[in-house]
Amino acid sequence: MFVGVDVGGTNTKIGIISKLGRVVAMDSFKSNMPQSPEDFAKLLANNINGLLNQAKLDLDQVEGIGVGIPGVVNLKGIIAQSVNLGWKDVDFNGILKQYFDKPIIVGNDADCAMLAEWRFGCAKGVQNAILVTLGTGIGSGIILENKLFRGAHGMGSECGHMVIRQNGKQCNCGNRGCWEQYASAKALALRTQEVAEKNPNSIINEIIAKYKKPSAHTCFEGAKRGDKVAKELVDEYLDNIVCGLINLTQIFHPEMFIIGGGVAKEGPYFIKAIDDKLNDFLRKNNFEPSVAVKRPVLENNAGIVGAASLAMDR
Amino acid sequence: MFVGVDVGGTNTKIGIISKLGRVVAMDSFKSNMPQSPEDFAKLLANNINGLLNQAKLDLDQVEGIGVGIPGVVNLKGIIAQSVNLGWKDVDFNGILKQYFDKPIIVGNDADCAMLAEWRFGCAKGVQNAILVTLGTGIGSGIILENKLFRGAHGMGSECGHMVIRQNGKQCNCGNRGCWEQYASAKALALRTQEVAEKNPNSIINEIIAKYKKPSAHTCFEGAKRGDKVAKELVDEYLDNIVCGLINLTQIFHPEMFIIGGGVAKEGPYFIKAIDDKLNDFLRKNNFEPSVAVKRPVLENNAGIVGAASLAMDR
Repeated sequence: MFVGVDVGGTNTKIGIISKLGRVVAMDSFKSNMPQSPEDFAKLLANNINGLLNQAKLDLDQVEGIGVGIPGVVNLKGIIAQSVNLGWKDVDFNGILKQYFDKPIIVGNDADCAMLAEWRFGCAKGVQNAILVTLGTGIGSGIILENKLFRGAHGMGSECGHMVIRQNGKQCNCGNRGCWEQYASAKALALRTQEVAEKNPNSIINEIIAKYKKPSAHTCFEGAKRGDKVAKELVDEYLDNIVCGLINLTQIFHPEMFIIGGGVAKEGPYFIKAIDDKLNDFLRKNNFEPSVAVKRPVLENNAGIVGAASLAMDR
Repeated sequence: MFVGVDVGGTNTKIGIISKLGRVVAMDSFKSNMPQSPEDFAKLLANNINGLLNQAKLDLDQVEGIGVGIPGVVNLKGIIAQSVNLGWKDVDFNGILKQYFDKPIIVGNDADCAMLAEWRFGCAKGVQNAILVTLGTGIGSGIILENKLFRGAHGMGSECGHMVIRQNGKQCNCGNRGCWEQYASAKALALRTQEVAEKNPNSIINEIIAKYKKPSAHTCFEGAKRGDKVAKELVDEYLDNIVCGLINLTQIFHPEMFIIGGGVAKEGPYFIKAIDDKLNDFLRKNNFEPSVAVKRPVLENNAGIVGAASLAMDR
C-alpha cells in the first residue's frame, strides 16, 4: 500500500492506494492555508494516521508516501515555490519525515495527475503524452519515452507560461502573453465578462446574472441556448487552447493530449471540438500522424493516485 | 572512421570523421537540386569514394555513414518531407545502401548539429541542451538527459513553428505567427526592408543600397554606426529571439542554448545580448538557475561531424 496526498490551497485529499492504483480508502480535510509547512505537516500526519486507523491498516503496510503540491519542486525534492500555499524553499519531505519513517516523495500536482493517467488511466501504454489542466492557470505534466519529464532542474514543463501572444496580457510569472492568460478557465471567465459588457443583448449577460458572476461555464451554456456571441466566444477559447496544443505538437509530437480541469467537464463536445480543431490543422498541413485528445479518466482521484505513483516510481 | 554527409539545397559537404570527432578529410560538391534521390545518391556515392581515395583510405575502414538532411526524418529513417530538396517519403537509406554495404543513418540536419556540439563541441558534458539555428527558417535540435530527443514519431523538435504571435504572419507550415516568422535571419531581412521604407532617413537605407538588398546583417551594421532606427530594430529582433527561448525554458529548462546560423556570427555582442535579455528575465522572475547561451564551436563542420555522430550513436 502507498499513501497519496494531494495538497490544495483549500482542501487536501489523502488516499491509501494499492499497487494497482485502486483507492482503498480516502479522506479530505481543510488545508487551513496560509500556515507554516511544520504546522501543516502535523495536521497531515494526524489525518494520515486517522485514515489508516479507519481503514484498519497498520503503518507497517505502507511502503511509501507521495505528496503532490501546487508548485515547483526541484530535483532534490525541495518545494522551490508554491504561490498557492505561500511556501518558498521548503524541504517538506524532511519535515514530514519526523512523523513517518518511510520513503517520502514530493512532486508537482500536474506531474502527479499525468503519472496517474499514464499508469492507471487513459494514457496506459502510451509512450509520450502531455496532460494539460485548465484551471486558475494551466498546469502541465509530460511523459516522454515512458518517463515523467521534469526538465534539467525538475522545474521545466511549465507549458502554461509559453508565450502565444508576444507583448500580450500581463501574467503573474512576470512575462506577457502566456498561454494561461488565454486558455485557462480563469482567462475564459475574465474574457466572458469583457464580451458580456460589449454585447449587452447577448444571453450571456442573463447567465452571468443567474450565477451572480461569469465563469468558464457561462459561454458554453449560452452557446447551447443558441446565442451567437456565446458561440463565437466558445470558438475563440477553443482556438486559444488549440494554439498551445499545436505548439506542443511541433515540439514534442506526443501520441496523446489529456485535457483536465473543471472546464473539460463541459462534456464530450468540448474534447471533440479540441480534437477536431487540432487534428484538422495537422491533417491539412501534412503533419502526421494525428494526436489523440482525451479527458482524464481518474479525474477526482488523479491527484492522490498520482502522488502515490510518485512513491511507487521512486 | 565514419563518413558524415551534410546535404544542403545548394551544396553538399562530406567528411571523413574520426571517433573523436576530428575531421580527417572533407570535400563539398553542388547538390544540383532538384534531382531525384536516386540520381543524388549516385552523385553522392561517387564523391564519397573520391574523398576516400584522396585521403588514401579504404572503404573497409569506414564503420558507418551518417547523412544529415534539411527536412523531417521519421523514426524509421524515412525522409517524410524535405521542402528544400523537394523530396517526400524517401527511403534514402535504402537507396544509398546500393552503393555502400555499411550501416547508414539518415537524420535531420539541426539534430546533427546539436549532436556534434554535444559530443565534441560547446555542449560536451551538458545533460540538457537546445540548439537553435537562425537561417531561412529556425531549425532546432534537442538533447534531453544525454539523448537526442526527436518526439514520439521522430518528427517533433520543430521549435521554429511554435506560435509566439497567435494569428500573426502567415508561415509556410500552414499556421500563423510562428517563431521563425519573427526570429529567423530571413524574417529579420524582410522586417529590415519594412522598417527602411518607413524611415527613409535612416542609415539602413544606405546600407541596403550598398549591398543591393537588405539582409540580417543590415541593422547590426546600422546599429554599429549609431543609427537609432537600426538599434531599435536590433533590439526588437533580440526580443523576438528571446521570446522563443523563454518558452523553451518554461518547457525544458535546459542548461544551455546554442544559437547558430549566419546571424549568430554578428560577434560576441549578439550572443551576450541574448544571454543578458534571457537571464535578466529569469533572474527578475525567480526562475533559477540561469541558462547558458553559447555559439556553436564546430560551426562549419557541425553538419558533417554531427552526421557522422548519428552513425556512431547507432
